[in-house]
Amino acid sequence: MTYAGTGVNYDAMDPFKLMAQRAARETAGNITELAGGEFREFEPSRGESVYLIETARSYFAHVEEGLGTKNLVADAMYILTGKSYYDQIAQCAVAMIVNDMVTLGALPLSVAMHLAVGTSDWFKDENRARDLVNGWKNACDLARCTWGGGETPTLKGIVVPETVVLSGSAIGIIKPKECLIAGPIQYGDAIVMVESSGIHANGLTLAREIAGKLSEGYLTKLSDGRTYGETLLDPTYVYVGLVEDCLARRGIDIHYAVNITGHGWRKLMRATQPFTYMIDTLPTQLPIFDFLQQHGPVDDREAYGNFNMGAGFALYVTEASTAEVIHVAKALGLRAFVAGHIENGDKKVVIKPKNLEYAGETLAVR
Amino acid sequence: MTYAGTGVNYDAMDPFKLMAQRAARETAGNITELAGGEFREFEPSRGESVYLIETARSYFAHVEEGLGTKNLVADAMYILTGKSYYDQIAQCAVAMIVNDMVTLGALPLSVAMHLAVGTSDWFKDENRARDLVNGWKNACDLARCTWGGGETPTLKGIVVPETVVLSGSAIGIIKPKECLIAGPIQYGDAIVMVESSGIHANGLTLAREIAGKLSEGYLTKLSDGRTYGETLLDPTYVYVGLVEDCLARRGIDIHYAVNITGHGWRKLMRATQPFTYMIDTLPTQLPIFDFLQQHGPVDDREAYGNFNMGAGFALYVTEASTAEVIHVAKALGLRAFVAGHIENGDKKVVIKPKNLEYAGETLAVR
Repeated sequence: MTYAGTGVNYDAMDPFKLMAQRAARETAGNITELAGGEFREFEPSRGESVYLIETARSYFAHVEEGLGTKNLVADAMYILTGKSYYDQIAQCAVAMIVNDMVTLGALPLSVAMHLAVGTSDWFKDENRARDLVNGWKNACDLARCTWGGGETPTLKGIVVPETVVLSGSAIGIIKPKECLIAGPIQYGDAIVMVESSGIHANGLTLAREIAGKLSEGYLTKLSDGRTYGETLLDPTYVYVGLVEDCLARRGIDIHYAVNITGHGWRKLMRATQPFTYMIDTLPTQLPIFDFLQQHGPVDDREAYGNFNMGAGFALYVTEASTAEVIHVAKALGLRAFVAGHIENGDKKVVIKPKNLEYAGETLAVR
Repeated sequence: MTYAGTGVNYDAMDPFKLMAQRAARETAGNITELAGGEFREFEPSRGESVYLIETARSYFAHVEEGLGTKNLVADAMYILTGKSYYDQIAQCAVAMIVNDMVTLGALPLSVAMHLAVGTSDWFKDENRARDLVNGWKNACDLARCTWGGGETPTLKGIVVPETVVLSGSAIGIIKPKECLIAGPIQYGDAIVMVESSGIHANGLTLAREIAGKLSEGYLTKLSDGRTYGETLLDPTYVYVGLVEDCLARRGIDIHYAVNITGHGWRKLMRATQPFTYMIDTLPTQLPIFDFLQQHGPVDDREAYGNFNMGAGFALYVTEASTAEVIHVAKALGLRAFVAGHIENGDKKVVIKPKNLEYAGETLAVR
């Protein structure tokens, strides 16, 4: 099975994204006269996971993100088990937003929820509604930010009844300005990967198709005895504390950071610089990825090119800083490890243990 | 016809909103240690249209909003006329976001687009995609802000194929802090209303149901000879310039501002203060509202309680400032007028020319 085969075809979307990015760049001048002229866009953030506006003593940060289709798995599991799982997918949605924000060193101040339903009847299930609210609140606590409002439209004829679109946005801050993760990536830098809790919120469309092929569906057991459905719904790790503690408390110079979501490990070459990203150590393979690869079947190229494969976040630092990053992660309950390093060469990601190479042009995000 | 009858039932949603607002308030303390302790939430913004975080010399602003179902009208008209109208609905979406932001005096810095599709094939219509991009860009120009990125997920099984969920968010700034619209509303204040371009982006579910009852549907002619469909799609006015020019350039002391969207004119009593909002002058009735009321039929109570009825924004100022507000509006091509004033009494909105009263408890937004 392939990701494009599920109807999530980046080849169809990417031209739109590029057209939008070009138009968006033309708006940069609109804020130069605002409030006496102290704001300007931070142009290098265009094409990154978070948009920055520069001021004299800080950067403001803005992220817009969403959960994808993970709530459909929760809906199915709710029917099968009586547990809504909406607390867990709320955390996934918040994590998608704030984990993007911290890639440039910005810390979230406020996260807003956008919950679009197909019919207002969706709200009549108080159990599910309460789980969603509690999960969003707890995720804001984990992300060390406030829950700053939101929007709950009823979109009859647009959102399929009984489902929801769960997304949101965040505003954030980099202060002092030295906390900006601005690179440059350097030859010899270590690539420190940080474990994921599982699939997080990327690749769910493919995972749902696999469920449809299994005789026991989401209740199929993984090698560790847990069900496929409950494992898919493990809440996404929040990496805000990791970045804040590395930057603000330890003063570690992070050269670049990657939230490993859509495009999987291809995201490791998100920076504009033309390096080779050489991976020689893989994270512990989680049972969920063995299962997905076996039952798709999904080959290694497709899997590492679309899933996080057990590594949800990556930090590029000097070799000398790796032990401290790993220590900070451990203090937060996260396992980090040196996965590889930066080499001179064509822009590509090389995963040596799997004999995989992804050329630069396979990641069209800017 | 009534709004609740269309499936947009605020009675079902409002308990969820209140539960979410209570949980959100508990997160206020999460940012007090951030960056040396200079950020704190501005508690009075809870329950307003925009969430504020206070710093020593400014407020940061955050809005999450969406278009609603107006794109379904554009989709229908595209089939009927060959014109996509996505440039116009893009402006409506941006306007929904930034018009909320300015109600407390915040000016948008960056607006992000969230476009969720049911299938990636949606992007294959280059004409529609280009209209959407151009419209969003032009609306950011009108709103004097940058287009700061966005997200375009494919949500198979959640978003009805051939439709989209169009929404977004904004970050903004109030600086100097004196530009905060902080009230208090005072006895005797004038209510200055500013005209709308038409239905804007509220009440479209009801408007679409009416189209279904007409033999010529969206091509039915209004009293001015334009079609129902093209009139519904008139782009929403952007009120950013109005607020910025009143506050920053003229120093007008705005006591309160209301973006008249969902809940229609009931929004006039959004502030916590227990005043009577007495309206004695109506805007020029636009043909679209005559048409909606006639063909629903929609009675006055339902119409003024859910549509903007020709007034998209309201500013509460002293009687002495009204002429200047009207002058600033005129310079921007907007018609403003003194619609009424603030009286002591029970919290309610009274629309004298229509013999209507809405009691305070009919607006459960906090």
